[in-house]
Amino acid sequence: MVRWEPGASDRLRKAALELYAARGFEQTTAAEIAASVGLTERTFFRHFADKREVIFNGAAEFEGGFIEGVRDAPESESVLEVVSAALAMAARFFPDERREFSRLRQTIIDDNASLREREQLKMTTLATGIAEALRDRGVTEPHASLAAQSGVTVFTVSFHQWIAEGETRPLGEIEADIMGELRSLTRAPLPNRGDSSR
Amino acid sequence: MVRWEPGASDRLRKAALELYAARGFEQTTAAEIAASVGLTERTFFRHFADKREVIFNGAAEFEGGFIEGVRDAPESESVLEVVSAALAMAARFFPDERREFSRLRQTIIDDNASLREREQLKMTTLATGIAEALRDRGVTEPHASLAAQSGVTVFTVSFHQWIAEGETRPLGEIEADIMGELRSLTRAPLPNRGDSSR
Repeated sequence: MVRWEPGASDRLRKAALELYAARGFEQTTAAEIAASVGLTERTFFRHFADKREVIFNGAAEFEGGFIEGVRDAPESESVLEVVSAALAMAARFFPDERREFSRLRQTIIDDNASLREREQLKMTTLATGIAEALRDRGVTEPHASLAAQSGVTVFTVSFHQWIAEGETRPLGEIEADIMGELRSLTRAPLPNRGDSSR
Repeated sequence: MVRWEPGASDRLRKAALELYAARGFEQTTAAEIAASVGLTERTFFRHFADKREVIFNGAAEFEGGFIEGVRDAPESESVLEVVSAALAMAARFFPDERREFSRLRQTIIDDNASLREREQLKMTTLATGIAEALRDRGVTEPHASLAAQSGVTVFTVSFHQWIAEGETRPLGEIEADIMGELRSLTRAPLPNRGDSSR
């Protein structure tokens, strides 16, 4: 597995993101990325299966953080507490020094339909994985799926806030806020629906 | 726009789904679909931009149902009430006689990574659209995004239950149940997190 550490892999990734952002993802070749940091196309393909992989090869680690968070959370009366622990664990994957990288990565994804689709699938896979880990802890359906999806929702909304221009709070703090907002939203009373059933 | 009504379009769609399910999506050509109902490839492409379009061309109508539901919901003290109204409106897009079709469609999507990605993007587009419609009603962020995503979560979990083997309840009834489950889940107290912050 390619690790997040200085070296060819990181240089390639950095160069790739800059080229994707400047020229567009489709318009950039693996050979150009490699050449821009004095490496060969062959070296590129030793580190990444393809151009898309540069953007998504942290996905397993990212998902692993969440799953570990679910597994290691203390016994609790609330399934959302377990999800909150997983969110806190996942936030460690995004230290402040990664914010600029994440911002650039997001603009590249936003610009390309196929990358957006891939990113969405990643989030669905994450939700499926969290739901499975919750079921392993004895949480039944539909609670496992609802809690897992809600966790992904809180993560997604928080992550977009984290990379917003001018935002300086750490991701974990934003997640805790957004989880509170979700709880207050769903705690509001649901009025009698008689007048909207026509 | 191609309408959901008897005729060439419906015959093509029905034939396409049966072939996709029997042979696999990638292995089926537009010409084969057309031929199986005595039509030409040219007729196929008058109704559908491509093979994928057969599966996704109801997306705009589907999303439109939700957005209309948000727009037309009565003034309410709870943003989730608006989302519930949208879910009820969207359920009308899935009458019981459509359940078998939806089941078949889902097995085809589940079997193909690119279709899964497309379906996911559809749900994200839906969440974005609902959030926008909520903001148009004066709901502020992050509440609009959280409520929209929660609505999509309730829809997704409900829809999978609706097409589950042996399920006979209408989608609208399942949605109301699942929304109740989400509310009870997030209403559970969140214990002091002191012991999980290490």
